Amino acid sequence: MTAADTPSPNSSESHDALRAWFLGPRAENADLLERVIVEALRDHVFWRRNYHPEDGFTIRETDKRKPGYENAVSTLTQELMGLLAELKRGVPFFSGRYRAHMLSEQTIAAQVGFFATMLYNPNNVSVEASPVTSRLELEVAAQLAGMIGYDPAHSWGHLTSGGTVANFEALWIARNVFYLPLAAAGAARDLHVDLTVALPDGTTAPLESLSLQQLLNIRTTDSLELWDALWRSESHERVTLALANHSLSTVGYQDYGRRLALDYGDPLPASVILVASTAHYSWEKIIRALGIGSNQIVRIPVDNHFRLDTAALWDTVRSLSKRRVPIMACITVCGTTEESAVDQLDEVLAVRARAATELGVTFHVHSDACFGGYAAAVTWSADGNRRSAADIRASSGCDWPSELWVRAMTALGEADSVTIDPHKLGYVPYPAGAFLLKERRARELVATDPPYLAPTAGLDSAEDLYLGRFIFEGSKPGAAAAAVWLSHKVLPLNETGYGHLIEQTAAGARRLYDGLYTADLAPFRVVLLPRPDVNIICYLVHHPSLTTLDAVNAFNERIYSLMSLEVAGATPEYIISRTRFQTPMYDGAIATLLHELGVCTEDDWKRAGSDGLVVLRSTVMDPFLAAPPPAPDHIAGFITALRHACDAALG
Amino acid sequence: MTAADTPSPNSSESHDALRAWFLGPRAENADLLERVIVEALRDHVFWRRNYHPEDGFTIRETDKRKPGYENAVSTLTQELMGLLAELKRGVPFFSGRYRAHMLSEQTIAAQVGFFATMLYNPNNVSVEASPVTSRLELEVAAQLAGMIGYDPAHSWGHLTSGGTVANFEALWIARNVFYLPLAAAGAARDLHVDLTVALPDGTTAPLESLSLQQLLNIRTTDSLELWDALWRSESHERVTLALANHSLSTVGYQDYGRRLALDYGDPLPASVILVASTAHYSWEKIIRALGIGSNQIVRIPVDNHFRLDTAALWDTVRSLSKRRVPIMACITVCGTTEESAVDQLDEVLAVRARAATELGVTFHVHSDACFGGYAAAVTWSADGNRRSAADIRASSGCDWPSELWVRAMTALGEADSVTIDPHKLGYVPYPAGAFLLKERRARELVATDPPYLAPTAGLDSAEDLYLGRFIFEGSKPGAAAAAVWLSHKVLPLNETGYGHLIEQTAAGARRLYDGLYTADLAPFRVVLLPRPDVNIICYLVHHPSLTTLDAVNAFNERIYSLMSLEVAGATPEYIISRTRFQTPMYDGAIATLLHELGVCTEDDWKRAGSDGLVVLRSTVMDPFLAAPPPAPDHIAGFITALRHACDAALG
Repeated sequence: MTAADTPSPNSSESHDALRAWFLGPRAENADLLERVIVEALRDHVFWRRNYHPEDGFTIRETDKRKPGYENAVSTLTQELMGLLAELKRGVPFFSGRYRAHMLSEQTIAAQVGFFATMLYNPNNVSVEASPVTSRLELEVAAQLAGMIGYDPAHSWGHLTSGGTVANFEALWIARNVFYLPLAAAGAARDLHVDLTVALPDGTTAPLESLSLQQLLNIRTTDSLELWDALWRSESHERVTLALANHSLSTVGYQDYGRRLALDYGDPLPASVILVASTAHYSWEKIIRALGIGSNQIVRIPVDNHFRLDTAALWDTVRSLSKRRVPIMACITVCGTTEESAVDQLDEVLAVRARAATELGVTFHVHSDACFGGYAAAVTWSADGNRRSAADIRASSGCDWPSELWVRAMTALGEADSVTIDPHKLGYVPYPAGAFLLKERRARELVATDPPYLAPTAGLDSAEDLYLGRFIFEGSKPGAAAAAVWLSHKVLPLNETGYGHLIEQTAAGARRLYDGLYTADLAPFRVVLLPRPDVNIICYLVHHPSLTTLDAVNAFNERIYSLMSLEVAGATPEYIISRTRFQTPMYDGAIATLLHELGVCTEDDWKRAGSDGLVVLRSTVMDPFLAAPPPAPDHIAGFITALRHACDAALG
Repeated sequence: MTAADTPSPNSSESHDALRAWFLGPRAENADLLERVIVEALRDHVFWRRNYHPEDGFTIRETDKRKPGYENAVSTLTQELMGLLAELKRGVPFFSGRYRAHMLSEQTIAAQVGFFATMLYNPNNVSVEASPVTSRLELEVAAQLAGMIGYDPAHSWGHLTSGGTVANFEALWIARNVFYLPLAAAGAARDLHVDLTVALPDGTTAPLESLSLQQLLNIRTTDSLELWDALWRSESHERVTLALANHSLSTVGYQDYGRRLALDYGDPLPASVILVASTAHYSWEKIIRALGIGSNQIVRIPVDNHFRLDTAALWDTVRSLSKRRVPIMACITVCGTTEESAVDQLDEVLAVRARAATELGVTFHVHSDACFGGYAAAVTWSADGNRRSAADIRASSGCDWPSELWVRAMTALGEADSVTIDPHKLGYVPYPAGAFLLKERRARELVATDPPYLAPTAGLDSAEDLYLGRFIFEGSKPGAAAAAVWLSHKVLPLNETGYGHLIEQTAAGARRLYDGLYTADLAPFRVVLLPRPDVNIICYLVHHPSLTTLDAVNAFNERIYSLMSLEVAGATPEYIISRTRFQTPMYDGAIATLLHELGVCTEDDWKRAGSDGLVVLRSTVMDPFLAAPPPAPDHIAGFITALRHACDAALG
């Protein structure tokens, strides 16, 4: 008997609510969606009608009889029908038959929230262009901050166009915090101000006494205390000027390097970024664009669960410290793009704490939770308390999640910055990413003043509403903020809302995993990766006739072709995606897999280079995969389709 | 008799079509919008119904009778009503009474295109996640490229979340092109390959013979020829490795500076970015984030039309050249945020040509046409030929545009990169920016390979559809591409579509300008800036009792308060915005204005620093301001409202 059969009152309520949250795989809730869409549209229409009715009508009924008008309407209708026909060549993300990328349908709340707001066209660059949705944006950012365990009074967050820009902002701010003690030391020198600063080992020292290496190893909070002390020490004008003379953002890398060599006479190696091997490829783009250079990426190996290997992290930190290489940041992942693996963030933070005490070394810790962040909702009960792993397992009805997992998710509240994409496990339309910062003060380090969007006096916390000052992007859709906001209203960020939804996808992924594990596909054999941390399953299919890595790769590549939507080809019964595990990123995780496969050694795989190992990949975004009949059994169906593809791929 | 009274057949057709393009200030086209929205929704619903009908229903009618379901629906409905009520506290951008920021309503085509596609939720990161909308994105980018005069066969473009990211990409690519000859020289040295390169003065020279300064002054096309030659000279693997050893993107600024000092023994000053004084404040953010440093911004003064002063540009280039300062790029503006001023790009390009011949100096020329870019549509006739300024004036029915303006717009085709925001004068929902690159090859310089989105064999020009490789962002809304695409279908990028629309806003802005110019507000006096290049009018109001700059500023600030939408205050009859002209950005444009005002000298104004001069600002996005009766006369209404605000502000 599973938990789904004997649900607690809460989960029974959520079980039924889940069926109202989405349009549904057969558009079962079409009436509901149409009702709210039309309601939103008419509501907007009558707002316009009621705005200065004395203005009369600009477009008159007689205008609508003119050939130019009628032609324009015909063109619109015709081209729209063309677009609608085209769109049907798209991918059925909504269906239980789509088991590929992290794409799905969206909540009705998000759809109608986006649409209703789009009609008003607010621009969240500033409260003047979005009096309502700028507030909603700050509200949802605070909700997300609360979900990961940040203190809303000291943290800050906002929405972005997506994960890349959110991650970019994280490293952009981290870099400014990293170099802040240097700027402060230079400014203090110029202003003849004496400041003291706390070192990572807990002692304090006069700022002027620190070496270059020490200045690049100050904890974020202590750097910001330094910043505050500097502003208190002298007039605003003098501090502004002095800081500008010593800040990387004004001076620029080229002169900054020369300046440091001159001031400190210390050719310190370039500062590095530690990146989990499984981190998204956009980190390379970001690190290149910021001018840090991809040579400064130090990849930390993963363990056999595709999580950052924290023992290797410690070794790396120690070795870098010996070579006097400063560490700007460590990028951990919560929900890798390929496997949904959740790094053991609590252990990463323990490594940092140990480095502070033993080595005098510290660094910014970022969690790229773009995919996995929303899963933190499962750790919250409806009454605002944290749930234990056992509690969650009781409602998920399976062996997910582990104690370790809950510990990792709970540790998000201690990361210096976290990024979460509502347009992934938040089930809202693109674009919606989120950037969350533990220490709100740090945003000042990237502030730029626009001339035409200056705060209006009299607003509560006015500066918060002029987001443009602190964020990278300018114009952005207020509609996205409203979509996330309404979706959070209908699906709270706890066990009754998003927690239940994500629990269901994780439970679905487990059932699919178990289905593949127990399926008899003889003579084929499914080789599975470890059970996923959230809801992405990776596997490959083997056959006795395949005796080389190349042959296994080619075979799985053919299966993928047969089960993917070619742009101009036939529609497969089920749709999957695939990835490649390449050296050196997967060195730590590949041994077990190759052993189970038994066609090649680790050296062979390393020699294969970028060809790597082709792995099939199924993301379970579908909230209904774990649903009991009469919901269709898409696990049995999937296994049958896979079997057919195997036969065809071999033949 | 104006052209509006005796229209050509074409403009009469467009005049009538204009009335079908928008929902309308009183939602006159509510029936039309509702019809197409419901059509799109039902079309999607029945797509789902027809996708594997044998799967049965996951959500059953009996499920809809359960309390959990009903509660979820109640919550959705209740919260939506709350959101709709909140939204009405927003700003009536659609109304002829909104004369403030560059915000307006959107075309019906864009609204329904976005909504219809959002239901399918495509993600334009890759064709696998967006088989239809990835193509639409490339199609609209090619349309925009054609509109500005790029050769679609050699150019490239894509959509972004907005102008900031588009501009960021422009400078990111420009930097990579700028340092390419250095990387090529280093790689050629390592590979023992002899290459020759064309210099800006037209001569050629062996690559190895060039000084550091010469290497940083190679034209884009010649840099890319060098790049091609390098790839032809040796195996892919060896060139990849050699380039990586010498590229800024891998090496990073910190080691790069040291390397150059070592290799060339030449402490060349940091490279600079020339920026029109009126450029958007986000350029400072971008230049800081890229690690170039805001000290490297060299602001070029504006003339008294708020256009980049090209004589000053030449002086700056010559003086930088004397001091051996390399120039990475020059950022010109097409449609400034404050005044809609259009830089004389043809003259900027002439300065660059002269610098090449006389000084051996060259640089990337970018046009930030985020606001003004769509105005290039007015330069195209329906048959695909360019229109003369006189032709356009005949249909605009006013003295807009000038010959100079048409020359500047035509020159866009010669800029190395151009950014255009469809979510501004393209009248589509947020988010939609566009980045356009003259030389498509240059995108290779920022390419990064994602592991899981590798091209599928057999696609035509497959690499183009895997946008993620070449662009900064990852996930992004296919819906935005469809919105722009459908809007371009209904409003072509020529005199019959966007050209007519923008002509109408420019004509409306002229009428408003003339209205203010001739209005008798005695004892108040309106001081107007020059007639705008597109459709933003700036002005301030003076009164004999105001004898200081402070007093004039305070008075205009009060007018602004009375005519702006305070978040919690009353609704004004008409809504305006304001900006501040500060030193040194406006030094070149302030003289006439201060002279007309007569309360202070230029020195007084400079001493006012960041207080500057408060200027009232009205953007005319409204397509109907130039419309004849029975459309409401929002010019007379506006002047009356301004008069009332003046009285109240003084009293």
